[in-house]
Amino acid sequence: MKKAVVLLSGGLDSATTLYYAKAKGYKCYCLLFDYGQRHGREIKSAKRIANKAGCEFRVLKVSLPWKGSSLLDKKMMLPVSRDPLPETIPSTYVPGRNIIFLSFALSYAEAICAGKIFIGANAIDYSGYPDCRPQFIEAFNKVIEKGTKVGVRGTGHGVRLKVEAPLILKSKKEIVKLARRLCVPLELTWSCYKGKAKPCGVCDSCVLRTKGFKEAKLEDPLYG
Amino acid sequence: MKKAVVLLSGGLDSATTLYYAKAKGYKCYCLLFDYGQRHGREIKSAKRIANKAGCEFRVLKVSLPWKGSSLLDKKMMLPVSRDPLPETIPSTYVPGRNIIFLSFALSYAEAICAGKIFIGANAIDYSGYPDCRPQFIEAFNKVIEKGTKVGVRGTGHGVRLKVEAPLILKSKKEIVKLARRLCVPLELTWSCYKGKAKPCGVCDSCVLRTKGFKEAKLEDPLYG
Repeated sequence: MKKAVVLLSGGLDSATTLYYAKAKGYKCYCLLFDYGQRHGREIKSAKRIANKAGCEFRVLKVSLPWKGSSLLDKKMMLPVSRDPLPETIPSTYVPGRNIIFLSFALSYAEAICAGKIFIGANAIDYSGYPDCRPQFIEAFNKVIEKGTKVGVRGTGHGVRLKVEAPLILKSKKEIVKLARRLCVPLELTWSCYKGKAKPCGVCDSCVLRTKGFKEAKLEDPLYG
Repeated sequence: MKKAVVLLSGGLDSATTLYYAKAKGYKCYCLLFDYGQRHGREIKSAKRIANKAGCEFRVLKVSLPWKGSSLLDKKMMLPVSRDPLPETIPSTYVPGRNIIFLSFALSYAEAICAGKIFIGANAIDYSGYPDCRPQFIEAFNKVIEKGTKVGVRGTGHGVRLKVEAPLILKSKKEIVKLARRLCVPLELTWSCYKGKAKPCGVCDSCVLRTKGFKEAKLEDPLYG
C-alpha cells in the first residue's frame, strides 16, 4: 500500500486533507507539531481525528525559542477581527513554520519510504501567509528534488517524494463541502485560536470557518 | 551592524565558515543542533569556538525519532574506510538534515532580522550528501524567496534573506588554508565521528581532514 505523511493540526483543513489522502488510497502517517501553541486543544482534536481515521499518529515537540508570532508569544495580541481577509501578513504568522514542518515531514517520509506528503495549506482565505501559497509548495518540491536521497534516487519503486496541498486553491466553502463529501468527522475538528470549551466565534479562524459553513449551507456541529 | 545566523557544528568546515562571516563584517548568531548525535564532543567544541569568536551561541534540541542514519541509529555500522570519496550516498546521511537545520535558521533569522544564513556545506569531498550541493542551496533560497516574510517583503533595510555556503566548492586542502588565513582556532575544532579524547584517524571524517592538512602542508593541532 502506498504511504503518505500527513501534517495534521486538528483543524478543518488538515482533517479534510487527511481524508482526501485516505480516499486516494494512501496509508497515512499523521504528524503533529507541538511548538508551544497557545492551547493543547488542537493536539487533542488531531489525535481523535487520526484515531477515527485509523491512522498512525505522532506528535513531535519543536522548540522555536525566538518567538516572533502572536501564536507563540503571549505578549503579542491575537488578532480578533470581523474583517476576514487581511491585506498584510498577519501577526499569527510563525516565521518559517511550514518550512520547518515540511522539513520534518520529508525526513519522516524518507525514513518510512513514503512517496507523498500532504499539507492542508490554503492560499485563498489566508493569503497573508507566504508559506501557504502554490509558489512556495512548488519551491519546496524543488528542494526535495535537489536535496534529498528520495529526490535524487527515488523511493525505489519509481516514486519520487512530493508535497501535495490539495486545498491550496479552494475557498472555505469548497473545503466544507469536500469535508462533508469525504465524511470528515467535523465534530472532532477545532479551528479557534483559543482553547476554551466552545469556539470564541470572533478570532480570524472562527470567522473564516463560520463563513465557510454558512456559504456551504451546512451547520457546524461545534455550534450545535 | 549586519547580522547573520551561522550553523556551527564544531567541525573544521563550520568553524571556518563562522570566521569567514566575521571577516565579512557580520555580527554572528551561531546555532547548533543537538539531534541525538553519537557524542556530545562536537557540542563542546562548537561552544568553545563561538566563545573564542565572541559570538552568540544557541543550542537547539531537535528530535528525529524515526532514525534512518548511522549517525543517529546505534544499530547501524559507522562507515570506517580509508577510501575517501564514496560513490553512493553514505550511511551517515541523515534524511532531510540540512533542510531541517536551514528551516530553523531562517526562522531564527526572521526573528532577529538577519539578512544572511551561513552554512559550511561542502560538495567536493562529501559529494554523497545531496543536501550539500550548490543546486540544493539554490533551491532552498527559492523557498525563502517564496515562503517567508523576509523573502517576500525583505528585512526592511532593502536586504533579502539568503543562504550562503562559502565552502561549497572548496577542497579540504583549500578549506584548511582558508582556516589558517582567517585564524580559525583549529585546536578547538572536532571532526571525528567518535567522541574519544583523540580523533580515531580512520573514520571518513578523520581521513578527509588528515588528507586536507597533508595537502595544505600544515600540521593538525589535534594530533600535536
